[in-house]
Amino acid sequence: MMGTKNIHDRINLALSETLKSAKDSPAPPKLAAAIDYAVFPGGARVRPRLCLAVAQACGEDFSEIGNCAAAAIELIHCASLVHDDLPCFDNATLRRGKPTAHRAFGETVAVLAGDSLIILAFENLAKGCMRCPERLPSLIRILTKSSGLPFGICSGQGWESEEKINLSAYHQLKTGSLFVAATCMGAVSAGEDPEPWVELGARVGEAFQVADDLKDVIGEMDELGKPQGQDAINCRPSAVSELGVEGAIERLQGILSGAIASIPACPGEAQLCEIIRHQAKQLMPPFAADKVL
Amino acid sequence: MMGTKNIHDRINLALSETLKSAKDSPAPPKLAAAIDYAVFPGGARVRPRLCLAVAQACGEDFSEIGNCAAAAIELIHCASLVHDDLPCFDNATLRRGKPTAHRAFGETVAVLAGDSLIILAFENLAKGCMRCPERLPSLIRILTKSSGLPFGICSGQGWESEEKINLSAYHQLKTGSLFVAATCMGAVSAGEDPEPWVELGARVGEAFQVADDLKDVIGEMDELGKPQGQDAINCRPSAVSELGVEGAIERLQGILSGAIASIPACPGEAQLCEIIRHQAKQLMPPFAADKVL
Repeated sequence: MMGTKNIHDRINLALSETLKSAKDSPAPPKLAAAIDYAVFPGGARVRPRLCLAVAQACGEDFSEIGNCAAAAIELIHCASLVHDDLPCFDNATLRRGKPTAHRAFGETVAVLAGDSLIILAFENLAKGCMRCPERLPSLIRILTKSSGLPFGICSGQGWESEEKINLSAYHQLKTGSLFVAATCMGAVSAGEDPEPWVELGARVGEAFQVADDLKDVIGEMDELGKPQGQDAINCRPSAVSELGVEGAIERLQGILSGAIASIPACPGEAQLCEIIRHQAKQLMPPFAADKVL
Repeated sequence: MMGTKNIHDRINLALSETLKSAKDSPAPPKLAAAIDYAVFPGGARVRPRLCLAVAQACGEDFSEIGNCAAAAIELIHCASLVHDDLPCFDNATLRRGKPTAHRAFGETVAVLAGDSLIILAFENLAKGCMRCPERLPSLIRILTKSSGLPFGICSGQGWESEEKINLSAYHQLKTGSLFVAATCMGAVSAGEDPEPWVELGARVGEAFQVADDLKDVIGEMDELGKPQGQDAINCRPSAVSELGVEGAIERLQGILSGAIASIPACPGEAQLCEIIRHQAKQLMPPFAADKVL
């Protein structure tokens, strides 16, 4: 896991505070329950953890900005999962080991839950920047770029409706973009320039994609909370089908080493390296965990 | 129509510039076409017109802020229409006289088009405030409040999935909230306090709701671009079923007089009164247009 218990608590506290005001009257009860259901209990919270780890490494001065940025990233991620599970997309029945949002609340409420979570993400950024409004424009720009058109998650999801698809662009847009947002927004939260942090986010995102491909073949269903072997069933190309298991592990190893090497000089550089190294071991299949550095 | 040709041109130019960058590579072609389809050619653009009319009345200093605020409001409105037309909501076949987005592009692309337009709205606000970043937090707060949970459009749409519904709250959330955003964001765009502008937005929004109820009974199909008599068919309570045609016209008259009376003192007060009065005549059924003031 990325970071410490402290980081995990910060994220869940920030998320529950944000959702609390959204669920207030006059919110309709089913929709209020659905946004909670889509966000809690969460997955590994990898993106917001990465965001806060970078904010801490940069020596953050106003912790509420990092909290709100991390929560905003997770809200966008959860919204994309809710919409991605809809019958017209993946028609998924399970997510994180429980029925998907549209199975639990109906399609209408699921569409609105996704919409509401997207809007809440931006509302949250504005709230977090009250004492430091000059950081808001950059945070908004990074989050919209990573979630919308033409460079974000929506763009990636949209490629699924095209006949010809560039797969590496597709993965970069659908998965990578929010990891880049995580590192860059972490830096901006602490008042730093986001540019030097793009590479770390891109590499961690790529590592997660390859690790996901590997887990789909050799992982355990419990870990993912969804059935495995889906890539082969759905004829989705993956790092494993392209390189084989050994080749994919080697690529993962290379990406993770590159990620660690890319970390810019910053006050908490050593600790951040340790966090990324720890995360890298978690991403490797158990029998290859010692191959990290 | 609200305002002058100048205002209409400003809105369409702001919208097309915003969409242009979103449709750039690597946006998937169908999704890029769908966001265009959802925004052009538009309806009456009433909300962004109201926003710009208020910005002008307040003596706006940076016209690009008003342009981006007006475009953001219209993008949120268009997104809500696209999602509201989906099979799981109204399952509408026609919108503004042409096939709805999901009929033209499929459900998947329609869901993503809505998501993309929401995100684009916030991206646009950040872009518009480059020279005046101190106005961005307030614009974000107003737009998220009027579109999300618990006070915005999503909240209103969510009430359609509940068994018991408070109809006046429902209309206020689903229709009224974005009119309040229009007047308040117009004021903030010009560097003014939004609070005194809440009442004008609320009253104009209410007037549109009553006028819509009237049109549903006595209007012409061409004007709405959708079949009429839908309220009765769908057993939706409306001002007409509650008060009768004459009673609804009287209420509309009262709301519009109140709207004009509520306009705060500002440099362009007289012109804004004229614009609202002109709009009011358009909202009245033709045989009652002379009843305005």
